[in-house]
Amino acid sequence: MVIESINNPSDVKKLKSGDIEILADEIRRAIIRKMSATGGHVASNLGIVELTIALHRVFDIPRDRLIFDVSHQTYAHKILTGRKKAFLDREHFGDISGFADPAESECDPFRLGHTSTSISLACGLAQARDMKGEKHNIIAVIGDGSLSGGIAFEALNRASEACTNMIIVVNDNEMSIAENHGGLYGNLAKLRETDGKYPNNFFTSLGFEYVFERDGNNAEKLCEIFQSVKDSQQPVVVHVVTQKGKGLEAAEKEKEKWHWHAPFDGRISECGNSNSNAANGNNSVGDNSRDSVSQEDNLPGSDLCSENLQKDNFKDEDLKMPAKKEDYRTYLGEFMLKKMQSDNRVLAVTAATPSVFDFFEDKRVKADSQYIDLGIAEQNAAGFVCGCAAEGLKPVMGVYSSFIMRSIDQLFEEAALNAAPAVFAVGNASIWGTNDVTHLGIFDIPILSHIPGLVYLAPTTLEEMYSMMNWAISCKDGPVAVRIPAGKVYRGKSEPNVSYSLKCEYCVTRKGSGIAVIAAGGFYHLGEAAAEVLSEKYAISPTVVNPRYLSGVDAETLENLKTGHNAVLTLEDGVVNGGFGAEIARYYADSDMKVLVRGLKNEFIDRYDPAEVLESSGLTAEKLALDAFEAYQAFETRSNQDR
Amino acid sequence: MVIESINNPSDVKKLKSGDIEILADEIRRAIIRKMSATGGHVASNLGIVELTIALHRVFDIPRDRLIFDVSHQTYAHKILTGRKKAFLDREHFGDISGFADPAESECDPFRLGHTSTSISLACGLAQARDMKGEKHNIIAVIGDGSLSGGIAFEALNRASEACTNMIIVVNDNEMSIAENHGGLYGNLAKLRETDGKYPNNFFTSLGFEYVFERDGNNAEKLCEIFQSVKDSQQPVVVHVVTQKGKGLEAAEKEKEKWHWHAPFDGRISECGNSNSNAANGNNSVGDNSRDSVSQEDNLPGSDLCSENLQKDNFKDEDLKMPAKKEDYRTYLGEFMLKKMQSDNRVLAVTAATPSVFDFFEDKRVKADSQYIDLGIAEQNAAGFVCGCAAEGLKPVMGVYSSFIMRSIDQLFEEAALNAAPAVFAVGNASIWGTNDVTHLGIFDIPILSHIPGLVYLAPTTLEEMYSMMNWAISCKDGPVAVRIPAGKVYRGKSEPNVSYSLKCEYCVTRKGSGIAVIAAGGFYHLGEAAAEVLSEKYAISPTVVNPRYLSGVDAETLENLKTGHNAVLTLEDGVVNGGFGAEIARYYADSDMKVLVRGLKNEFIDRYDPAEVLESSGLTAEKLALDAFEAYQAFETRSNQDR
Repeated sequence: MVIESINNPSDVKKLKSGDIEILADEIRRAIIRKMSATGGHVASNLGIVELTIALHRVFDIPRDRLIFDVSHQTYAHKILTGRKKAFLDREHFGDISGFADPAESECDPFRLGHTSTSISLACGLAQARDMKGEKHNIIAVIGDGSLSGGIAFEALNRASEACTNMIIVVNDNEMSIAENHGGLYGNLAKLRETDGKYPNNFFTSLGFEYVFERDGNNAEKLCEIFQSVKDSQQPVVVHVVTQKGKGLEAAEKEKEKWHWHAPFDGRISECGNSNSNAANGNNSVGDNSRDSVSQEDNLPGSDLCSENLQKDNFKDEDLKMPAKKEDYRTYLGEFMLKKMQSDNRVLAVTAATPSVFDFFEDKRVKADSQYIDLGIAEQNAAGFVCGCAAEGLKPVMGVYSSFIMRSIDQLFEEAALNAAPAVFAVGNASIWGTNDVTHLGIFDIPILSHIPGLVYLAPTTLEEMYSMMNWAISCKDGPVAVRIPAGKVYRGKSEPNVSYSLKCEYCVTRKGSGIAVIAAGGFYHLGEAAAEVLSEKYAISPTVVNPRYLSGVDAETLENLKTGHNAVLTLEDGVVNGGFGAEIARYYADSDMKVLVRGLKNEFIDRYDPAEVLESSGLTAEKLALDAFEAYQAFETRSNQDR
Repeated sequence: MVIESINNPSDVKKLKSGDIEILADEIRRAIIRKMSATGGHVASNLGIVELTIALHRVFDIPRDRLIFDVSHQTYAHKILTGRKKAFLDREHFGDISGFADPAESECDPFRLGHTSTSISLACGLAQARDMKGEKHNIIAVIGDGSLSGGIAFEALNRASEACTNMIIVVNDNEMSIAENHGGLYGNLAKLRETDGKYPNNFFTSLGFEYVFERDGNNAEKLCEIFQSVKDSQQPVVVHVVTQKGKGLEAAEKEKEKWHWHAPFDGRISECGNSNSNAANGNNSVGDNSRDSVSQEDNLPGSDLCSENLQKDNFKDEDLKMPAKKEDYRTYLGEFMLKKMQSDNRVLAVTAATPSVFDFFEDKRVKADSQYIDLGIAEQNAAGFVCGCAAEGLKPVMGVYSSFIMRSIDQLFEEAALNAAPAVFAVGNASIWGTNDVTHLGIFDIPILSHIPGLVYLAPTTLEEMYSMMNWAISCKDGPVAVRIPAGKVYRGKSEPNVSYSLKCEYCVTRKGSGIAVIAAGGFYHLGEAAAEVLSEKYAISPTVVNPRYLSGVDAETLENLKTGHNAVLTLEDGVVNGGFGAEIARYYADSDMKVLVRGLKNEFIDRYDPAEVLESSGLTAEKLALDAFEAYQAFETRSNQDR
C-alpha cells in the first residue's frame, strides 16, 4: 500500500510516478470509507484527489502557501499532511475537523469555512511576501461555484493588479452545489469547449496569465502544468476540469446530493456487514448544504470491521439512503411550494443554499421559475429581493444564519432604509443548527434585531412558523426576517389567522405571578419546561411569554409584568451579548425588576454536542428554574425584611 | 434660458436638438453655483450632465426604470425631474438631499448612498417586470469605480444570465475617487484605447452585448446610442467615457479633491462678492469622501446676490480653499505616516476611502508602498488585511462605520475566528460623523462589540487614540478595532505607555459615590459635563469611568461600583439598542443597581443637526444629570423608607 509510506508532503515528492495513480485510488477509498461512517463532503473531496497530490508533488508546502477556498475539500490534503490516521483508523475519525485548521497542521494557513475568500487571503499573503523580500509561491484553489461570490471578484481584481506570483487554481467541476448560475459560467463552458482557447476569456480580460487542463483527474498532467507555472512572477489562473464525486458511482451521478452526505451504506465487501452503516444520519438535518459539516460529521465511526483498503466497488444499489428526520426546513419548503402555487408573485430566492427550503431537485422543478438560485452571492441576493419587492413581487430569500453576515449592509440600506417588503427566512439559526465553528447560527440576533425598520420574528412551533411566514409575505410595509428553528419540530395550536404588525407585541401564553419567563423562538420550550419546574418544585406559578419578536420590546407587556412579578427570566437560542434578553434588561434597568438573561455564551464553539453546551451554559429547565427562584426569593426576603 | 422650460422629463424630449448643449451648460452652471454655496459632489455631477439629458431624451422615466448607482451623481437628474428649484433658488437649496430619494420624485426608484448596488436592484426590477409581462426598459448607471465592489460583479453575473432587457451604462471617467485599482481597470483602459474594439472584453466575456462611446459628454451621440439599445431584449453594457469635473477647471484638474467639495469661492462675476463663499466648510470634516454628503451639504446657501445663470468662467485662481478644521482624521493620518516610517511592516489599507486617514495625494506619496487602496471592495480589504497579518505585517484597514457593514462576515470568519492581528480604524463612527441617512455612523457598536475575539476600543481624546492605535498595531493576539471619534478634537494627558490587553479593563477617571457615569468614546466628555452638573447642582460627587472598551464588560470594576453607588449612567456615541450600555444593564440586571442607558435612538435620521438630535434625545449634561439624580434619589428615598 502506497499510502502507508506517506507521512508528509515530502513523501509525495519521493513517489515513483507509477505509484501516483495507486495513491490516488487509495486516498479515494479511504475517503469513501470514512464518509460512509461519518458523513461529510463526499463529492467535492473525491473530485480533487489527483489535483491535491500534484500540488504537493510540485510545490513545497508549507513554505509555499496553499489555501483551499472554503476548505471543505481538504480531505486528501489532510491525508498527505500528517493526518491520514483520521481517515484510516476509525478510532481517530473524530480527531480532525472537516475544514482547514492551522491547529491541526502548519500546512493549513487559515481556518476557513465560508466560500470565496481564498484569493483575498492569498493577496494578503503575497503582499507580506513581497514586502519581506521572500520568494515562495502562493496558491489558491477555488471551485467554480465559489467564483461567483463578490469577494472572489474583488480579490481577482487585486491579484491581477499586484502583478507578482500568485497561482489561482480554478477547480471547475461544472457545478457549484446545484447548477451554476450567471454569465461567468457561460464563459467557463466556452473555455471547456475550446480547450481554453476561446479568445474572450474572463481571466485574461482581467490581466491574468491562463493555462487550461481538461484532464484534472490526471495527476501527471497536472504536475506538468504546475511545474510550468511554479515561481511565475505573474498572477496566473490554472483552469482545470475535474470530475466531482469521482470514484463513487452514486456521487458521480448525483453530485448535488453527494456534495455533502450523511453516513451511508458502503456495503464494503470484505466486511460483510452490509447494513451496519445505514445509520443515524440523513442528508439535510444540521447541514448548511453549501459548504458545511453537519453534526453527524463528528459521530464516531460505525463498525467497520477492517481498516484494510481493498479495492471496493461501490455502486448505486449498494447505497441505501437512511430515512429522513423531521426537519423545519422540509415544512418550510412545502409551505413555500403551496404559497407559490397559490400566488404567482411569491418567489423563493437563494444564494446557492436551496437546502434552506429543502429544495432538492424535485421541489425546484415544481417551483419552476418562482425558484431562483443566484449562486454564491449573498449581497446580490439581498439586493435582488429588494428590487423584486419594490415592484410588488413577494420574494423570500432563504439564507443560513452564518451566511447572512454577508448581506448586512444590504439589510440596512436596500432593505430597511427603503422599507422594501422582502422576506428573509434565516435557517439553522440555532444551537441545534450546524455545529462547525465556521457555520455557527448563534450570532445573528444581536445584528438582525437592531436594524431599524427590520422586523425579526422567532416562531416557536411549526404552526407559528406558518403564521409568521404568511404574514411576512403579505406585509407591504417593510422587510421581515423569520428565524427558522432547527432541531426537534414542535407542534402548536393551528393559528392561521394570527396577525402581526410592525409593532412588537408579545403573547402571554400562561398567566401567573412572581416570575415571568420570556422565552424566544427555539428556546421557548425550554422556558416552558423551566416554568413547569418552578410550579412543581418551587410552588411558583410563573407567567410565560412567547415574545414572538426579537426586534424591539413590547413595552406594554413588560410594564404590565411589573405588577405581580419581581423577576424575569429571558431565554434566546443565540448569544446573549447584545441580544434579545439584553434589551429586556435595558428596559427594566432602572426599575426594581430582577432580570436573568439566559442564552448562549458569546464564543466560537466547534463540533459541539448541543446537549453538552446547554448543560454547561446552565440552560436546563432545572438550573434555570433554580436561578429564577433564587432571584425571586432574594427579592422577597429583602422585601419582607424591609417591612 | 432653456432650463426655464424644463419641468419634467417630457420637456427634455420636446427640446430642439440645438438647445441640448445650452441646457447642459445651464445645468452645469446651476450645479456649480449651488455647490459653491453648499458643497456637494461636484466633479461626479459635472461629468454626467449630457449623459443624464440623453437618458431622459430617449427613455421614458419613470415608466422605464432608471437607477443611478450610489446616486450622488443625480443633480442633473433632479433638475430634469421637477426639482430644479433646489438648484436655482437658494431659498430652496436645502429642499432636497444629495442622493436619490423616492420621497422627492417617482423618478427615483430607491434611496441609495452605498456604491455598487444598482445592478443588483435592477435585476430585481427586471425579474418583476418579466414575471408581470411588462415591457419597460431598466437602466442602471454605474461608475467605473463602483464596478469593483463585489455586489456589482455578483449582479453582473446574474444580469447576463437572465437574458432579458437591461441596459447597464458604465460611466467611465477613468477614476473612482482616487486612482482606479485592479485588473478590471486595465481592461477598461484597453477598451478606451481601441474605441471598444479590444477583443478580450470583460463585459462580453460575461455574455453582455457591448456598445462603446468615447464622447460621453456629447448628448447627441449618446442619444443615438441609447436609441439603438432601447427595448433591447438582451442585457447590454453601454460603455461611455465622460470627463469628471467637466466645466470647472479646478475640478477637471483635481478630480479627487473635487469629487466631493465643501462650499467654495466661485467668484461669481456678476455678484462681485468675491470672498463671500470662502465659508465654513472644508473638504474632509464630516465627509466619507467616497460617496457621501457632509453636514455642510445642508447648510443654507450663502449670500449669492443673484440667481441668474450667466456664463461664468471658473479658473483655479478663482477658487480659494477654506482653512481646514481640526479633525481626528488628520491626526490619524499623521500618526500612520510616522508609524509607517518607523516600522516598514505597518500598512495603511483602504477600500477607496483614503480620507479615513486624511490621505490626500501628498500623504499617499509619503506613505508610498505602505499605503494600499484596494478600490471599492470592503470584503476583500478585510480579507486582505487578515492575510497580511497572518504573515507578520501590521495592517490597518481604515474604513467608515457605514461601510464596515460590508465586511461583517470577514470580521467574524477571517479576522476573529483566525485571531488575525489586523487593525480596523473605524471612522465617522459618531453622531458628529456624516449626517446623511445612507452614511450614518451610529449603528456599528451593536455589531462590532459582539464579535467574539474582536476587541473594540473607543478613545476619548487624541492622546488616547494614539495609545490605542499603538497598542492595536503592536497586538499579536487578535484583531482590534478602534472607533475613531468625530467632531471636536479633545486633548488629554499624554499616555504613551498605557497598555491594553484583550481583556476589557475600564479606567476610573474620577472617584466619587452615589452615581457612576460610564461614558464611552465620543460621549465621554458629555459624561464629564453631566458629572459636573451633578456636583454643582445636586451636591453629588459621582464616579466617572472611561470604559475604553466597547467589547465586553469589566466585571471587576462593575462589581466594585456596587459599593457606594446605587445608580449607573452609561453613555455611548451610537444607538443604545444592543450596544455598550445594554451590556452593562445586562450585567446589573439581577442586582439592585439602577442603570440608565443613554445614547442615540435606533432610527434612520437624515440631514440632521447633531445638537438638535442630542437635545431631543435627552443627551445634554443638564438632562442627563437630572435623570441620573432622579434615579439615585428614588432609590435613596425608598431605602430610607424601608429603614
